[in-house]
Amino acid sequence: MRRVAVFRKEHFNAAHRLFNPAWDDRKNGEVFGKCAYPNYHGHNYEVIVRVIGVPDPVTGFLIDMKVLSGIIREAVLDKFDHKNLNLDTPYFRNVNPTAENIVMVIYDLLRERIDPALELQVRLYETERNFVEYPVDKE
Amino acid sequence: MRRVAVFRKEHFNAAHRLFNPAWDDRKNGEVFGKCAYPNYHGHNYEVIVRVIGVPDPVTGFLIDMKVLSGIIREAVLDKFDHKNLNLDTPYFRNVNPTAENIVMVIYDLLRERIDPALELQVRLYETERNFVEYPVDKE
Amino acid sequence: MRRVAVFRKEHFNAAHRLFNPAWDDRKNGEVFGKCAYPNYHGHNYEVIVRVIGVPDPVTGFLIDMKVLSGIIREAVLDKFDHKNLNLDTPYFRNVNPTAENIVMVIYDLLRERIDPALELQVRLYETERNFVEYPVDKE
Amino acid sequence: MRRVAVFRKEHFNAAHRLFNPAWDDRKNGEVFGKCAYPNYHGHNYEVIVRVIGVPDPVTGFLIDMKVLSGIIREAVLDKFDHKNLNLDTPYFRNVNPTAENIVMVIYDLLRERIDPALELQVRLYETERNFVEYPVDKE
Amino acid sequence: MRRVAVFRKEHFNAAHRLFNPAWDDRKNGEVFGKCAYPNYHGHNYEVIVRVIGVPDPVTGFLIDMKVLSGIIREAVLDKFDHKNLNLDTPYFRNVNPTAENIVMVIYDLLRERIDPALELQVRLYETERNFVEYPVDKE
Amino acid sequence: MRRVAVFRKEHFNAAHRLFNPAWDDRKNGEVFGKCAYPNYHGHNYEVIVRVIGVPDPVTGFLIDMKVLSGIIREAVLDKFDHKNLNLDTPYFRNVNPTAENIVMVIYDLLRERIDPALELQVRLYETERNFVEYPVDKE
Repeated sequence: MRRVAVFRKEHFNAAHRLFNPAWDDRKNGEVFGKCAYPNYHGHNYEVIVRVIGVPDPVTGFLIDMKVLSGIIREAVLDKFDHKNLNLDTPYFRNVNPTAENIVMVIYDLLRERIDPALELQVRLYETERNFVEYPVDKE
Repeated sequence: MRRVAVFRKEHFNAAHRLFNPAWDDRKNGEVFGKCAYPNYHGHNYEVIVRVIGVPDPVTGFLIDMKVLSGIIREAVLDKFDHKNLNLDTPYFRNVNPTAENIVMVIYDLLRERIDPALELQVRLYETERNFVEYPVDKE
Repeated sequence: MRRVAVFRKEHFNAAHRLFNPAWDDRKNGEVFGKCAYPNYHGHNYEVIVRVIGVPDPVTGFLIDMKVLSGIIREAVLDKFDHKNLNLDTPYFRNVNPTAENIVMVIYDLLRERIDPALELQVRLYETERNFVEYPVDKE
Repeated sequence: MRRVAVFRKEHFNAAHRLFNPAWDDRKNGEVFGKCAYPNYHGHNYEVIVRVIGVPDPVTGFLIDMKVLSGIIREAVLDKFDHKNLNLDTPYFRNVNPTAENIVMVIYDLLRERIDPALELQVRLYETERNFVEYPVDKE
Repeated sequence: MRRVAVFRKEHFNAAHRLFNPAWDDRKNGEVFGKCAYPNYHGHNYEVIVRVIGVPDPVTGFLIDMKVLSGIIREAVLDKFDHKNLNLDTPYFRNVNPTAENIVMVIYDLLRERIDPALELQVRLYETERNFVEYPVDKE
Repeated sequence: MRRVAVFRKEHFNAAHRLFNPAWDDRKNGEVFGKCAYPNYHGHNYEVIVRVIGVPDPVTGFLIDMKVLSGIIREAVLDKFDHKNLNLDTPYFRNVNPTAENIVMVIYDLLRERIDPALELQVRLYETERNFVEYPVDKE
C-alpha cells in the first residue's frame, strides 16, 4: 500500500492588476509598483497540481492524468484562461489577485472536485522566477 | 573580418486583446476566439534580439550585451512592461496587437537605436508554443 | 508588405527502431547501436513548424495559430501520436525512421495542407540534445 | 551535523504500453485510451534522484554526483534505456508500466545500492506535464 | 490563517575549484576529478529561495517578490556574482565550495535578513543536472 | 537529394575573465565591468552544433549523432571542460574569451574534423540570455 505523488502541469493566460481599493493611487503605486498600473497587465500562468494517494493495483493509476487534466480544465482553466482575473471572475472582487491569493483560490476550486481520500497541493508560476505553493508540505 | 550573430533575451509582462474595431462582437469572437474577450488577458512575452556584424578586434565584442540589454529596456520594455498594449501604448491604437504586429513594432523601435551597420532581427514568444520572427532570414 | 515567420510547437510520443532490413542483426547493431534493439524504444518528439508570409492587414494574422495547430494535429499528430512509427504508419515501411527521415515525412504531410504561397519549415526534436530541420534556410 | 538534499537528473528513452492482460482490447481501450495501442509508444523519461544525509566534513560531499550518476546508470539506465519496458525488463511482466509503477520499481532498484543511512526519493517525468514522485515527503 | 510558500529564482556566475588543502594534488585529483583542476572552472548557479508564512491580508503578499529579490541580491549575489568563490569570498577559505557547502552558506547569509517568523529553504543548481537543497523538508 | 540540418547540443563548464592586457585595471573595469574581475568567474556553456548535408539513403543518417557527439567531445569539450579558458588553453592567450571569440574558436576546431562536404554552424550559450552564432546564415 505504497503512496505515490502524481503531478499534472497546465497553463492559462490571464490579465490582472494588484491594488487595494481602500487606498488611493499613490499608496497603491508605493506598495504594488508596476503591478498596480490601472489598465492591467498579464501572465502565462503555469499550474502544477500534485495529488497523493495509493495507486489502484488493477490499473496502476493513482489518478488517470487525462481525468486529472479534465478536472483542472473544468474547475480552473475554463474560469481563468484568457480572462481578466479582477473583472471576469467572482474570486478577486474583494481579494487582491496576488500569486499567493490565486493559488489558494485554485486549491479551493480543485479540492471540491478531487476525492477527499487524496491529498492535494497546488504550485502556481506567475513567471519563471516568481512562484507559490499551497498548502505547504510541513503542515 | 568574420561576421557573428549576438543574441540577447529579455521579457515583459503585458495585457492585450485581439479585435477589429470595424467588426461587431460576434464577428470578433468568430475570428479571434478567446483572444477577443473584452476585458483583456495577458502574457509573459519573451523577446530575443539578434544583431549581426563584425566584432571589434580590440574588445572582442560585436556589441556589449549589457549595452544591448539597456537599449532593449529603454526602447521596448519601459514602454510595454506591465502595460496594456491596446490602451497604454500608441502603437496598437489602429493596429491589432497580434504577435506578428507586435514583433514588427519592436523591430522598428530597436532599428532606430541600433547602429545601421548591424543587421537586426527580433523573435517574440507569446507563449512557449506560439512565437514569431521578423524580418525573415530569407529576404 | 512585410514578411513574418510564425512558429507553432506541438509534440507526440511514439516508439521506433532503427535498422536496415537488408542487414543482419550484427551489422544493424554495429551501425545503429542501442537504436536497433528489436523491441523498440521511444521518444517525446517535439515538432516546431515555421510558416513564412505576409500577415493579413485586416486580422494581423499570417495564419491563426489555432488553425495551424489544427492542421498539424490532423496531418501529423493523429497519425504519429502514441504509435509505433515502424509498424503503425505507412511512411517507414521502407524508410528508416531516423530523425532526418521523419522530419522530411512531416514536411511532406504538412506541405499538402499549407497554402502554397507560404514558405514552410519543420524542426523536429528527438531529444533535447538531438534535433533536425528541413528544409535548410540556405537553399 | 546539518542534513542536505542532493539531486541528480538522468534520462532514458523507452517504449511501453499500458494494458491489463485480464481485460479484452475494448476494456483496455476504454481505460487506457491511446496508451493501450498494441504496438507500443515511447517517452524520453527524466529521472531525478534525491538523496538526503549529512555531508562528509572532509570532502564537503554528501555523495559524489559522479558516483551517484554511476549508480543510477548501472541500477536503472542500463536496464531501461532504449528498451521496451513491457518486453525487455522483468519488472513489468505482471505490473502495468504506468509512471506510478515505474517510479516505485526505480526506487527499489536504487534503494539496494544507496547507503541505508541516506534517505532516498525518486521523481520520474514521463512528459514535461506528467510526472510522479516516490516516496512522498509526508510519510 | 493559511500558510503559503513563496519562491524566487535568482542566478550568479562564479568560478570555483574543489580541493582539500591537507591533501596533495594526486589525492585531490582522485577524489575531486576535473573539479580539482588548479586554475578553476565555473558555473551559472541558479538559486531558488523558498519562504513560508501567512500572507498579509491587507496586501495579499507573504513577502513582496521585489523585496525578496533585493534581499537575495544584497546578501548573496553582490558577494558571489562574477567572483571566484575560493579566492574572493571569506566563506570558502577553510570550507570546500561543493554545492552542499555553498547552499548552507547561502542559507546562513539569507537567514540573518529574513523575518524569523518565516521559514526559509534554499535550492542551488550547479548545473541543470546537479542540485542541492537546505534545509531538508523532513527535519 | 534533399538537404537536412542536424543539431547536437553539448555543454562544458569553464572559468574565464575578459580583459585587454594593453589596458590598465581601470580601463578594463570601465569596458568589461564585472567580467574583468581578476580572479575569474565561470559559466555552464551550452554548445549547439549544426551540420547541413544530404542524408545517406542506406542509413537515413546525415551524420550519426553519437559520432558527432564524439567529435565535439574530442575537439572541444576535452580542451575546455572544467578549464580556465584564459590560462589552460592556447586559444585565448592573445584573444579575449568573449562569447564571440569563443564561438569562432570552436568553429575552427570543429571545421577541421567535419567532412568538408557538410556545412557547419555553431551556437554558444554563455547564459540562457546571452548567446552567439557563427557563421551567420546570411553569408
